[in-house]
Amino acid sequence: MRLWGGRFSDESDARVADFTRSIEIDAELALDDIRGSIAHVHGLKGAGLLTSDEATTLVEGLESLANEVEEGALVWDPSLEDVHMNLEAALTERIGPVAGKLHTGRSRNDQVATDLRLWLRRAIDRLDDRLVEMERALVGLAERDADAILPGTTHIQPAQPVLFGHHLLAYVEMLERDRGRLADCRRRANVSPLGSGALAGAGYPIDREAVASELEFEGVTANSLDAVSDRDFVVEALAAASLGMVHLSRLAEEITWWSNPAFGFVRVADSFSTGSSMMPNKRNPDPAELVRGRAARVIGALTAVLALLKGLPLAYQRDLQEDKPPLFGAMTIWEASLGVMAGLIETLTIDRDRMRAAADQGYTTATAVADALVRRGVPFRAAHHVVGSLVARAETGGLALERASDSMITASLSSSDDRTARELAAEPDIGGELRAAASIETAIGALDVVGGTAPNRVSAAIAAARARLGD
Amino acid sequence: MRLWGGRFSDESDARVADFTRSIEIDAELALDDIRGSIAHVHGLKGAGLLTSDEATTLVEGLESLANEVEEGALVWDPSLEDVHMNLEAALTERIGPVAGKLHTGRSRNDQVATDLRLWLRRAIDRLDDRLVEMERALVGLAERDADAILPGTTHIQPAQPVLFGHHLLAYVEMLERDRGRLADCRRRANVSPLGSGALAGAGYPIDREAVASELEFEGVTANSLDAVSDRDFVVEALAAASLGMVHLSRLAEEITWWSNPAFGFVRVADSFSTGSSMMPNKRNPDPAELVRGRAARVIGALTAVLALLKGLPLAYQRDLQEDKPPLFGAMTIWEASLGVMAGLIETLTIDRDRMRAAADQGYTTATAVADALVRRGVPFRAAHHVVGSLVARAETGGLALERASDSMITASLSSSDDRTARELAAEPDIGGELRAAASIETAIGALDVVGGTAPNRVSAAIAAARARLGD
Amino acid sequence: MRLWGGRFSDESDARVADFTRSIEIDAELALDDIRGSIAHVHGLKGAGLLTSDEATTLVEGLESLANEVEEGALVWDPSLEDVHMNLEAALTERIGPVAGKLHTGRSRNDQVATDLRLWLRRAIDRLDDRLVEMERALVGLAERDADAILPGTTHIQPAQPVLFGHHLLAYVEMLERDRGRLADCRRRANVSPLGSGALAGAGYPIDREAVASELEFEGVTANSLDAVSDRDFVVEALAAASLGMVHLSRLAEEITWWSNPAFGFVRVADSFSTGSSMMPNKRNPDPAELVRGRAARVIGALTAVLALLKGLPLAYQRDLQEDKPPLFGAMTIWEASLGVMAGLIETLTIDRDRMRAAADQGYTTATAVADALVRRGVPFRAAHHVVGSLVARAETGGLALERASDSMITASLSSSDDRTARELAAEPDIGGELRAAASIETAIGALDVVGGTAPNRVSAAIAAARARLGD
Amino acid sequence: MRLWGGRFSDESDARVADFTRSIEIDAELALDDIRGSIAHVHGLKGAGLLTSDEATTLVEGLESLANEVEEGALVWDPSLEDVHMNLEAALTERIGPVAGKLHTGRSRNDQVATDLRLWLRRAIDRLDDRLVEMERALVGLAERDADAILPGTTHIQPAQPVLFGHHLLAYVEMLERDRGRLADCRRRANVSPLGSGALAGAGYPIDREAVASELEFEGVTANSLDAVSDRDFVVEALAAASLGMVHLSRLAEEITWWSNPAFGFVRVADSFSTGSSMMPNKRNPDPAELVRGRAARVIGALTAVLALLKGLPLAYQRDLQEDKPPLFGAMTIWEASLGVMAGLIETLTIDRDRMRAAADQGYTTATAVADALVRRGVPFRAAHHVVGSLVARAETGGLALERASDSMITASLSSSDDRTARELAAEPDIGGELRAAASIETAIGALDVVGGTAPNRVSAAIAAARARLGD
Repeated sequence: MRLWGGRFSDESDARVADFTRSIEIDAELALDDIRGSIAHVHGLKGAGLLTSDEATTLVEGLESLANEVEEGALVWDPSLEDVHMNLEAALTERIGPVAGKLHTGRSRNDQVATDLRLWLRRAIDRLDDRLVEMERALVGLAERDADAILPGTTHIQPAQPVLFGHHLLAYVEMLERDRGRLADCRRRANVSPLGSGALAGAGYPIDREAVASELEFEGVTANSLDAVSDRDFVVEALAAASLGMVHLSRLAEEITWWSNPAFGFVRVADSFSTGSSMMPNKRNPDPAELVRGRAARVIGALTAVLALLKGLPLAYQRDLQEDKPPLFGAMTIWEASLGVMAGLIETLTIDRDRMRAAADQGYTTATAVADALVRRGVPFRAAHHVVGSLVARAETGGLALERASDSMITASLSSSDDRTARELAAEPDIGGELRAAASIETAIGALDVVGGTAPNRVSAAIAAARARLGD
Repeated sequence: MRLWGGRFSDESDARVADFTRSIEIDAELALDDIRGSIAHVHGLKGAGLLTSDEATTLVEGLESLANEVEEGALVWDPSLEDVHMNLEAALTERIGPVAGKLHTGRSRNDQVATDLRLWLRRAIDRLDDRLVEMERALVGLAERDADAILPGTTHIQPAQPVLFGHHLLAYVEMLERDRGRLADCRRRANVSPLGSGALAGAGYPIDREAVASELEFEGVTANSLDAVSDRDFVVEALAAASLGMVHLSRLAEEITWWSNPAFGFVRVADSFSTGSSMMPNKRNPDPAELVRGRAARVIGALTAVLALLKGLPLAYQRDLQEDKPPLFGAMTIWEASLGVMAGLIETLTIDRDRMRAAADQGYTTATAVADALVRRGVPFRAAHHVVGSLVARAETGGLALERASDSMITASLSSSDDRTARELAAEPDIGGELRAAASIETAIGALDVVGGTAPNRVSAAIAAARARLGD
Repeated sequence: MRLWGGRFSDESDARVADFTRSIEIDAELALDDIRGSIAHVHGLKGAGLLTSDEATTLVEGLESLANEVEEGALVWDPSLEDVHMNLEAALTERIGPVAGKLHTGRSRNDQVATDLRLWLRRAIDRLDDRLVEMERALVGLAERDADAILPGTTHIQPAQPVLFGHHLLAYVEMLERDRGRLADCRRRANVSPLGSGALAGAGYPIDREAVASELEFEGVTANSLDAVSDRDFVVEALAAASLGMVHLSRLAEEITWWSNPAFGFVRVADSFSTGSSMMPNKRNPDPAELVRGRAARVIGALTAVLALLKGLPLAYQRDLQEDKPPLFGAMTIWEASLGVMAGLIETLTIDRDRMRAAADQGYTTATAVADALVRRGVPFRAAHHVVGSLVARAETGGLALERASDSMITASLSSSDDRTARELAAEPDIGGELRAAASIETAIGALDVVGGTAPNRVSAAIAAARARLGD
Repeated sequence: MRLWGGRFSDESDARVADFTRSIEIDAELALDDIRGSIAHVHGLKGAGLLTSDEATTLVEGLESLANEVEEGALVWDPSLEDVHMNLEAALTERIGPVAGKLHTGRSRNDQVATDLRLWLRRAIDRLDDRLVEMERALVGLAERDADAILPGTTHIQPAQPVLFGHHLLAYVEMLERDRGRLADCRRRANVSPLGSGALAGAGYPIDREAVASELEFEGVTANSLDAVSDRDFVVEALAAASLGMVHLSRLAEEITWWSNPAFGFVRVADSFSTGSSMMPNKRNPDPAELVRGRAARVIGALTAVLALLKGLPLAYQRDLQEDKPPLFGAMTIWEASLGVMAGLIETLTIDRDRMRAAADQGYTTATAVADALVRRGVPFRAAHHVVGSLVARAETGGLALERASDSMITASLSSSDDRTARELAAEPDIGGELRAAASIETAIGALDVVGGTAPNRVSAAIAAARARLGD
């Protein structure tokens, strides 16, 4: 039975029924839909469109349906198109014709917009919990191994040594921004479209603010045409999810490579690894790879909804039905990815010795040596050039900077365009001074600015993160 | 039970099992997987790795599983990760330990690549049928109403009159290109990865060509590392699907607007329309809107897979698991969209009078009038300017070009920079000549080149399309 | 000359120099780069790394460069890679070796992150002005023609009548959300990365907060690894731009269709239209079409940057260079599109009569008639069915609802499942009552809720918008 | 001066002229446009619309313009919108009013479609050369170091040893598919739209096939509406480019990681590396990173054009102007990326010892040991489990599989569910047999199937590639 069939003479073509049906997807909205309907009943009663008895009957019927949904007892009828029509039909079956008064002053257009906002609000709240949980996992690992030394990289090549804890805290910053974006999205999404009707507003004096308030919305939408066609909040959530998954995928990328024995920096726990059907030797960090792969699907979901909205005239168009699979899919992926990555991080073990040994490679303290020359009055650009040629000499000799010979150092200084540098070549202790500057601990300690990797700065950052998390 | 668990000490974390499981998705591959396994059994037998009895037992077991799958009798066990492990476990249950010999010389990596190519080949063959069906629907409508006259538009503004049949045949051209792309994709996809192992090749002398031949592949992949990590064919299919859906969405866009009473050119059958839960007057062309919306999701699917593949090192990475939801989703959408649009077109009624009346608006024969001046020796650029000013005069006077007065025509010609045009102003019959050129039928008939809208050209094009479709 | 060439023996391959050079793109950052450098000089001076004289020389040199840039007098040298190296080289040329001290405690990594944030902040401020200008154009048109009556549509089919002003105000809501998103993006972007060095922090005690304050940043980044690799703000700006362009493209879509003579609702001014090289009759709303098309490019820019960031390990990778063309391109498109659309709206003329005539089609007051039945006690679902069948009868008879005959009305009521409806059929005045409810003015007036299209609500919304714009 | 201004009263708004102008972009098409115009002149002459003298004058004028364009002498006038209007104006200036006859029977709609196809055809031919050059670079490196042994990976973890040459040949396969896709795209794109007019066909009996033949097209488009609105070939080229860049980005990803000293497998030449402005130690493989980053932009370009086309009604819409920046940008990126990567590969040096040492890690011959058990009658699934537990034992003992003790081997066999395996535990030589199977050379040699990594297979594959390249 089609609830809108009054003016139609023919039945739907079977292909059309299959093609337009959405109950497999929008059943996800059932509880939000019922909650919205209960508030709408109160609105109708307030407007004198329902008697107290009718309102009570409707609310009790709706609450009973909610129980059935929660228990999984309600069977969806695919011939009834969508969740709204399914619930109205189920209500009619249970409480009779008075159910026919529920849709007064309401359209599926404002109804689904309401449901979707309620759903997203709940999803955001769950995601915020997961983000906090993931931050805690990162801070916990940072605390445990904060002073392990990692070869910080740029261009995937060794750059400067950093504390492992410092590296982890970079992700905490990203996740905090994710929280901020979700909060902004929640704020903008958290207004009630109910009372906007199909596109032009309800034809009855419903108190929209009171209904909104019952649903814990912070206000009502200001324009009915916009209210039924606005999916900005869907895009905004998907953009936040895309960035959130990008952050997780960056971490996932590092973990997969650091698990390779060439690095051997980390070991993903057996419980977060899987094996191969063919190769008995394999221990694969599959969850991290799937996070990386699913990030791509979330990006695709965002692209899809933007392409969908582009050029749609006002007001509601059926194209908008296709906002749900991308939204539901992306938010579910993000939530699950945060959960699995939190577990992976909590159970990760690290190999400080491998990290430290790698930090010794790649001349990662060259900048610290250049900085030492600057402190002796050499302009940075000249110091950079001196140390560059020193690195070339040391590399040829197979020596670390800390073991560069006096003659290498003197030769590098002497060849400089800068007079101060050339004069330093003559100082007898300059070799020892620069070798001392080339020590990893010295180099790290010198990076002592807000946000830098010096141990005191990292400790302070961990403490700040803990405070922010309310721990 | 994990079939790869030999070296693992801990159980998987529950979140990991949930996160990595794919059986909900890849169960779709079950029949292809079984077919590939049967061919692999023959390959193993040929290589002396199975006795005849073992091979028979395995093949019979696999065929029995295929029956169960087709009847929907096989219950998937979510704890068994994926379709491959489910089928191997089910086989073991039915035929005992000899099932453990099936995975010899094979990895899930080459196995799933084989399954996916078999699946795609079937999907392409179904899609080709649907494309032909849709072309037939378009040609059928073109034949029925070929001579109806439509205001052809550019910039969504009236441009020149065209035959309605000519307009429909433009879509036939698009769909033929879709068929061509699918055929190219099929050809490149139709090679067998079986025997590539996990990444390096099988460790047994399996006759890969024979196995490929049994599976009706046209050849074998030439490099094992490429074979397990190549998803070009997925991208190629998604690119073809994206374009295919773009074509349908263009048609859908036209139908939604032409259904608006301002145009009233077409009427979508009741059986392809839906109503509104609130507004009793509505008859909405929902299937067309959903086609347009779902086109966006297919574009998102393509984006997702490209973003997924970018930067993945060789060989198989678990990220590749995420190729399936986009591929399955997109091909299913395309197939269903073709089916529903074919039905919509077959049942579409058109209003020739509204079309024709609209073609009379917008001065659509202005180019024909300019062409008439060119035939009288006026350079086109000058003719364009003369007719442009004539249109401005006629519009001001509220007249169609066919009814432009002699004085309007003379004034427009006289003001030209071109001497020939100015001379024509003095010819007594020029007004009648240009008004005659402004007739819609004359204008259409003059567009008599290959691919033009002149009636004889459209008839020829319909005949050519019918011949191509083998009708 | 390469400023980093100390350890290199070979020259760059010519293809590499071409391939890696970015000066054509990042010259856009020149003024921001200089401004950041001046603040950095003050930071270095504060840390005792520069004497007062050196600082003065550097600042004067930089200010002089800024003048040259503003005057277009500085010639970029393609052999110097990027804007940073170009400016450093130009500075060296002007003030000598002391320029070599400028890059102390700084890397191009934190430098370009700073430049990009300064650039974006300026772009956002310009965009906010443009958004306000566009809102004013919309509100201005709404005021002028607020009471014109438009056939409000859903599914691109006539739905209910709305005031034209109400329709325009929907866009004002969208643009206000655009402003909100930009403000949120600005807030998160407005922190200083300077002092983060290449990835690990500066090796000198620079007062980062003081430098940030000079640059009018609201704070400093909290983690150096994050600071140089974070491009969240780029994605956030592109997501805001994508939505902003989606909004404009929706309006553009309406304008292109409404310009078609089948509607004839609006006329784009000659000064915002273009013609055809071939068809003398054409007046095309090209700017609107280009807005729609460029929205697609902005969506592509967002996709590009997300795909770029996915899976990048920390910290800076050269891939990040590719954030600039999408960001610059998208923000420029958005700004120009707002400007041109504001002009188009300001000069748009509307045809009230055509709008009103179209609103009379499509039975757009059917919902109002159903609402009237509800007020008489008929449950909405039953009322919907009665009016649905009444529409079918009226359509068959070629009558508007306002002219439906008593017998049509009685027949529709009598066939209802609902007793109240059937009883109403017997009431003598029911025909007149329902015909009165079917009047467009009555129907619009009844949609009297917050956000509804009743004239008083629209007036209030215009006043609220004006107040918000500070007019 | 606007060549279409006949019916317009007002000048364009300055913002509109800026916004709609495309000469900065489409000047790229100048030579193709002229070539198309010359063929069109011959078509007009053939149709009797030009005298021989007029045709000669026009062709000479056009050829002279082509020379000016090639010499960079033609100055584009931004007030003339686009390349077509610029060239027509320049021609008029040079040869006078006869130039006004050039646009007879032609619109910018079929003109630009022709230009774009000619441009793309040239671009594809250049790209095919670059793909061949890149394949040669890969095959050259494969020949030089074919027998170097690499730890083949899946899940970014060591999997099985493969020959380095085998790994490189995987990319040759990818590039061959790229060539195939380009050839398919070229074939479908290589038809002439000339004669399709604005949308409905030319109004003169131009011999379209003759014009097409002069332009070396393989045929003519079959439907004029389709001809002016079809951009399938743009999407197809962008999809091919996206996949082509994905392939390069995969190689680039490997090179960046293999350059990290933790691997040290390859050394990018100084001439293909860059340094850091701050860190004197850096040698960064920037070209590879930029290839990876630019792949993202090409994906974004594809997304943009698909989003642009979705839902566009027939025929030409101005949105289509926006196809050019994505197309030109993407093809240019692809071409340059191939060039720079070919150079990088040609100059790459590899460290066989580091590769080989890494292949010794990660138990990469475990599968070979399992295969050895299979040859002794153990079902593969049981063999996999035995070797899995053997790997666990060896790892605990810090031993390579080749050095696993007899007791480890016996214990692993004895604990099997499989009787054959348990019986093998009692064989005295089984330890030696399995240790022999664990040798890397033995393991590689056993992967002797078509497409496998056994040395004879790799040699054959190199020979086949050379033959295919015509070397």
